[in-house]
Amino acid sequence: MFHDVRMRGFRRRADVEEAQAWLDCLPLERRVEEIPLEAAAGRVLAEALTSTVDVPAFTRSAMDGWALRGEATFGAAETDPIVLEVVGTSLPGRPHDGTLGPGEAIRIMTGAPVPAGADTVLRAEDGTQDGRTLRVRAAVPVGKHVGAPGEDIRAGREVLPAGRVLRPQDLGVISSIGHAQPKVFAQPKVHVIVTGDEILVPGQRPDGVCIVDANSPMLRALIDRDGGHANHIAFLPDHEAGLRTELTHVHPDVFEPFGTDVVIVTGGSSVGQEDHAPRLLSELGELRFHGVGLRPAAPAGMGTLAGIPVFLLPGNPVSCLCAYDFFAGRVVRRLGGRDPAWPYAMQRGALTRKIASVLGRVDYVRVKVDGAAIEPLMARGASILSSTTEADGFVIVPKDHEGWPEGTDVEVHLYDVLRS
Amino acid sequence: MFHDVRMRGFRRRADVEEAQAWLDCLPLERRVEEIPLEAAAGRVLAEALTSTVDVPAFTRSAMDGWALRGEATFGAAETDPIVLEVVGTSLPGRPHDGTLGPGEAIRIMTGAPVPAGADTVLRAEDGTQDGRTLRVRAAVPVGKHVGAPGEDIRAGREVLPAGRVLRPQDLGVISSIGHAQPKVFAQPKVHVIVTGDEILVPGQRPDGVCIVDANSPMLRALIDRDGGHANHIAFLPDHEAGLRTELTHVHPDVFEPFGTDVVIVTGGSSVGQEDHAPRLLSELGELRFHGVGLRPAAPAGMGTLAGIPVFLLPGNPVSCLCAYDFFAGRVVRRLGGRDPAWPYAMQRGALTRKIASVLGRVDYVRVKVDGAAIEPLMARGASILSSTTEADGFVIVPKDHEGWPEGTDVEVHLYDVLRS
Repeated sequence: MFHDVRMRGFRRRADVEEAQAWLDCLPLERRVEEIPLEAAAGRVLAEALTSTVDVPAFTRSAMDGWALRGEATFGAAETDPIVLEVVGTSLPGRPHDGTLGPGEAIRIMTGAPVPAGADTVLRAEDGTQDGRTLRVRAAVPVGKHVGAPGEDIRAGREVLPAGRVLRPQDLGVISSIGHAQPKVFAQPKVHVIVTGDEILVPGQRPDGVCIVDANSPMLRALIDRDGGHANHIAFLPDHEAGLRTELTHVHPDVFEPFGTDVVIVTGGSSVGQEDHAPRLLSELGELRFHGVGLRPAAPAGMGTLAGIPVFLLPGNPVSCLCAYDFFAGRVVRRLGGRDPAWPYAMQRGALTRKIASVLGRVDYVRVKVDGAAIEPLMARGASILSSTTEADGFVIVPKDHEGWPEGTDVEVHLYDVLRS
Repeated sequence: MFHDVRMRGFRRRADVEEAQAWLDCLPLERRVEEIPLEAAAGRVLAEALTSTVDVPAFTRSAMDGWALRGEATFGAAETDPIVLEVVGTSLPGRPHDGTLGPGEAIRIMTGAPVPAGADTVLRAEDGTQDGRTLRVRAAVPVGKHVGAPGEDIRAGREVLPAGRVLRPQDLGVISSIGHAQPKVFAQPKVHVIVTGDEILVPGQRPDGVCIVDANSPMLRALIDRDGGHANHIAFLPDHEAGLRTELTHVHPDVFEPFGTDVVIVTGGSSVGQEDHAPRLLSELGELRFHGVGLRPAAPAGMGTLAGIPVFLLPGNPVSCLCAYDFFAGRVVRRLGGRDPAWPYAMQRGALTRKIASVLGRVDYVRVKVDGAAIEPLMARGASILSSTTEADGFVIVPKDHEGWPEGTDVEVHLYDVLRS
């Protein structure tokens, strides 16, 4: 079949910064949920957490030894021990009842409650016990090795700020203040639509002129990394009607039970005859940007549909990765309460070979890192996903640069080192 | 009740390096499993993955435009176009059937198969089509904008090495070669035993002389981070009999269905009367090290039981975190096919205050990071878990240093920046 096609370019290419600035100001509705502690690692606190209790709630020993009155040890020395009577034992969770009298001590273990009447702990190595007789062989200052109530955390203290990406030790602190259900931002739900007549679903084998989709497994993992969840992945042919139906369903009234926060369409994002997505988005919602000064993701678009951010990512997998990371990822991260900026840690190094770019365009250049040597991979097309698996990271050439000569000190974003 | 207690120290403290070297040489049995692609992000490939197919399997266009014979464009110019006849269209997944004859061209989209007889693609901006008439307004070298079969990945190529921690884009590549079930190392299963009469289970509120366990939520998250899974968490009082039963059950014959790979006991790891774990481990298995020259985790121990590594971690939560990261984490990471070294990324900076240490002991010093200024937190005890939530990371003072003066350039391990 023959189509009469007008071929036109993008009316105007957006700058990367312009598109990012728009995304970073887009009003987003963040959902909040309470989740069990065992699922909270890496999640983001939606509100500051304040302790309502002292931790510990009691006076405790920091050492194994004997609890006593500190002043009773004054003058004690290896050659001139002071003798006290051991009248009991305090173990963690099993305190000594009663008040210590003058001349008395009790055996105590680390973490055990210090009994009333005692103010100091003598370390095990500074005393000798024989039956009930304790020989104190060193003087110890009053208050030594004793932890007051609230020593770790005082009641009323803010223990973790809102926006905290929860670390393993944070979960320990939350547990220790008796909290079980931290309030965190819900994971943004992303509806992914993969389009293309040539696309086979992951799990199939490439066959003839068809290729297996690389984008949905990659996007699922990128969305996870950014704290979101790909709650629905649809595969559609290059037919306008199917994509129209799918996009219409994104409306919150229809999607209420799913609560879609972001829509990503891959493929059909350019200006050709089969590129239905931009046209449909401008018809059903707003196509805010179409075409971006970014190689290799120029044919990307973005806008909103019923208040939901929609990203039109090129079908070429390198372009898809690049456009996700530059644009969609920012929104997923921000929706989940995270820093929208790059999730990759950075490292500096010197280029082993020049990078060529053009003024007015941002370039995403895959590089290998060997110590402080940064080797740009030979220019390879947007369709060569293996360039991103060979690379250790990427360098971004800003739009006001024509590239950099060999030896230039540059900053690399590292694929394998992630910051929270 | 009164116990007659002998208090003894550790017979011999192990060096950190000595214990780590032992752990890194410990024979470990790694299990391998095939998992679905959507669960594979962050998992570790157990064997190299080689493509059995070319990606793409066909000759494809890298641009929107017209497929033609390159030599037919020679001499074409804006002012002197060459006219060809457009005889069809090739779209992704919907190729043009038939062979291109002389003087012919077909419309083609990015990613579409290049038909037989064509060897070159003219970009959309370099031609004008009116009905079936194409005016070629620029010459284009033969082969331009055409990707050969295998351009991304050739059949027979190793696409990912064994030991690879799978990135999002790796999943895309695996999908594109028609693979659906990558073979990865199984997540090591860790059996966690929390001991202590004073311990309340997470979710409870601190009460009187009892404290809520901070270690199991923290350990669960640390184990997850290192690619493992805490498959069982037991809470036991300080009674020898209960711990004996629990440890006896660790034997592979008993634990077969669970396949425990590592055992971690927290609390009761020192040399006091309630410290049953070291004694039981030496009785039931081997207590290889007991007492380590490491502050704040000196009362740590480790050994094996029925061939399974067992870690005795101090109950104080900072000690527990520190001992996990120095010792247990290495084994969890190695069991899952990962680099046993620290998972934290590093950053250099200058100390804003001196750090004091003692010769012969490694110190784990929590620090705050402000740009390149590294501020050691004031020395706070092993029980102050909030010191690890306030800190941005830690500095390790090696055993042959007495500390460092203010201004020293040191390396910080960052809690929030993780490398895979």
